[in-house]
Amino acid sequence: MSLDTLAAAGLVCPAPAPATDRVQLGHGSGGKLSATLLRERFLPRFRNDVLAQLGDAAVVKVGREELAVSTDTFVVSPLEFPGGNIGSLAVHGTVNDLAMMGARPLYLSAGFVLEEGLPFDVLDRVLDAMAAAVREAGVLLVTGDTKVVERGKADGIFVNTTGIGRLLPAFRPAPDRARPGDAIVISGPIGRHGIAIMAAREGLGFEVRIESDSANLFPLVDRLRGALGGAVSVLRDPTRGGVASALNEIATQSGVGIELDETALPIPGPVSAACELLGLDPLYVANEGVFVAFVPAAFADDAVEALRMHPLGRGAALIGRVVQEHPRLVVLRTGIGGSRVVDMLPGDQLPRIC
Amino acid sequence: MSLDTLAAAGLVCPAPAPATDRVQLGHGSGGKLSATLLRERFLPRFRNDVLAQLGDAAVVKVGREELAVSTDTFVVSPLEFPGGNIGSLAVHGTVNDLAMMGARPLYLSAGFVLEEGLPFDVLDRVLDAMAAAVREAGVLLVTGDTKVVERGKADGIFVNTTGIGRLLPAFRPAPDRARPGDAIVISGPIGRHGIAIMAAREGLGFEVRIESDSANLFPLVDRLRGALGGAVSVLRDPTRGGVASALNEIATQSGVGIELDETALPIPGPVSAACELLGLDPLYVANEGVFVAFVPAAFADDAVEALRMHPLGRGAALIGRVVQEHPRLVVLRTGIGGSRVVDMLPGDQLPRIC
Repeated sequence: MSLDTLAAAGLVCPAPAPATDRVQLGHGSGGKLSATLLRERFLPRFRNDVLAQLGDAAVVKVGREELAVSTDTFVVSPLEFPGGNIGSLAVHGTVNDLAMMGARPLYLSAGFVLEEGLPFDVLDRVLDAMAAAVREAGVLLVTGDTKVVERGKADGIFVNTTGIGRLLPAFRPAPDRARPGDAIVISGPIGRHGIAIMAAREGLGFEVRIESDSANLFPLVDRLRGALGGAVSVLRDPTRGGVASALNEIATQSGVGIELDETALPIPGPVSAACELLGLDPLYVANEGVFVAFVPAAFADDAVEALRMHPLGRGAALIGRVVQEHPRLVVLRTGIGGSRVVDMLPGDQLPRIC
Repeated sequence: MSLDTLAAAGLVCPAPAPATDRVQLGHGSGGKLSATLLRERFLPRFRNDVLAQLGDAAVVKVGREELAVSTDTFVVSPLEFPGGNIGSLAVHGTVNDLAMMGARPLYLSAGFVLEEGLPFDVLDRVLDAMAAAVREAGVLLVTGDTKVVERGKADGIFVNTTGIGRLLPAFRPAPDRARPGDAIVISGPIGRHGIAIMAAREGLGFEVRIESDSANLFPLVDRLRGALGGAVSVLRDPTRGGVASALNEIATQSGVGIELDETALPIPGPVSAACELLGLDPLYVANEGVFVAFVPAAFADDAVEALRMHPLGRGAALIGRVVQEHPRLVVLRTGIGGSRVVDMLPGDQLPRIC
C-alpha cells in the first residue's frame, strides 16, 4: 500500500506539501531547486553578459587585464570535520572555482558572520586552518569583514570568500565548450567530502575513517595545462550536487549528451559502503578536491597520465565521453549493460555540505 | 545608590561578567572590541602588506592594473527599513568602500545565506532594491552564490557583497595620510541610518519619519576629485561605529590629533531628538550615505562648495581640523567652550546596523 493510500485511509498523516511561496532547504542544494531560484529570481534582475555565462567564476575586464572573480559563502555543518574545517574549505572552494576558469588565484577577501557565544578556541582553529590554506595556495587574503549576530541567529560561523585570479594565457576552459568526441576525465576518487561531513554530522563511526578531500586544485590544473594547454575544453569541480549535477550543468550549457561508464567511476570502498548505509548515490555526493576535465579523445591518455603524476591526481580516471545523442542528458552505462538517465538532484540530498 | 551597591545588598542581580573566551555582540560593533578581534586574531594570521593598510578597501595589483577590492557582509535587522532594505544597503556599503579608496566601482559579487521559510515576497523586494541600486551605481553584478540554512540557523537573509574597482588616476586618499593643518569636511547630515534602523526595530513612531541615508557616494566623491584632485588626503564613510569611530581610526593610523566643533556637526533635529530619547550619542550612530574628507585648510571652502552642488552633498559642512596636539585622540570642542575626548565605542551601541 502506498503512503498516499494509507493517508487517504487516515492511517498516516499526509506529508505537508512544500510551501511554494517560501525558501526551502532544497533551494541551497545545488540541484534543480537551486537552478530554478537562480533562473527565476536572480538572473532576470541582474542580467548582464558576464553573469549569463554561469561559470564557476566570472571573467571581467579591468583596464588591460582579464580577471576571474568567484564568490562562495560557506555554511558547512559541523564547522570541523575529518580532513578540514570551514576555514580551510572556504579557501579551497574559492581558489578552486578560479582554477576551473583557467585562472591563477591571487587574492582573497573574507567576510565572517559569527554567532554570539562562539568559543574563541573554535574560531582560532578555523582561522589557523584558513591561514594555512591561504599560505599553501600562495594567495593573499587582502581584506575582510566581521559581523556578529545574536545567539540563535546564525550557526557558529558562516564565512564568505571572494577570490580574484588572473587568467592564464591560451587556456580557456568553459562550461559551454564541451563537444561530441571529448573524453571526460576525473582527477581523483569521488564522494569523500560529503561522506566525511555526513559521518561527522550524524556521529557515524565507519570502520574506515573517511576524510574530506578538500584541497587546493590549482597545482593540478596547472599540471594539466602544462601537458595539454588550450586543448582542455571544460573544467569543473563537482562540489554541491556532486558529479551528477556538475555534468548535467555542462551538458545543458554545451547542448551535448554525456555518457558515463559506471564501472570506471573511482568510488573508494568506504564511500560506497557509507552511501549504501545512508541511502545516498555517490554521484550526488559533494567533492572539494577533484575536478572533471573535458579533453579531445585523442588527449585522454595524456590527461590521465599528467594528472596521475601529481599527488592529488593519483586516482585520475577516464569516466565517460561527450556524445551527439540525447543532448542535455547525462546517461550512465551500468556494469550489467543497462543504462539510466542521471538527472539533477530535485531537492536537498545533503544540506549544508559546504 | 549605584547598581553595584544595590547588588551588594542583594537587591538586584549583578550583571554577569562578559565571557572573555567567547564572541560577544560588541565584537561586531565596529568599536574597540572589533578592533581587538582584528588585531589579536585576524591580522597576526594573515599578515601581509596589503591587509596591513586597513583601508576601506584593499589595493592590489593584477598584471599592469591597480584595483581596489572591498568585502562586507550585511546582517542588518530588520531586513527592510525606511529608506532601503538589506539589498540596496549591500550595494551602497560596498561601492562606497571602493569610492573611499579613490576607486571607480566596476563589479560586484553577491553571496546570500537564506533562512529556510523566508517568504519569497521578502526576497523579491530585497532583490528588486539590490538590482535598482546596482543599475544606479553603474556597476555589474557578475557572480553570486546562494546557500540555505535550516529555520532558526540564520535570520532571514545575510548577504555578502564584494566589490572591485579601478583606481582613479592621481587620487589616493588613505587613512594614514591626514596631516596637521588638514580641514575635516563632512558631506551631509549624520545619524540617519542608525536611527532609521533603531526606529524600525523598536517600532518607535517618531513625529518625523527618519529615513536611512543609504546611497551610492561615488558621484559625490568624483565631484570632490574634480574640484580638488590629489589634494584630498583622506576619505572615509562613517558607517558602523559612526563618525567617532571613523575619526579615531584615522587619528590612530595617521598618528595625528583631531579637533571637532560640536556646533558645526550637521545633526538633523529629528535625529537629535531620537538620540536623546534612546540615550544614544549621534557621533556613534551609523551612516550609509555620508563621508568625511580631509583636505588642506586652504581648500576647505572649495571642498564644501563642490559637495554642496550635488544633491547628496547639500548638507556638507566643515566640522573640524587635524592638529599636532594630542596625537591619536579625537577631541570635541563643545558649544559652551569646554572639550571632551571622543573615544572609540567600547562595545556594542547598536548591533546589526548593517
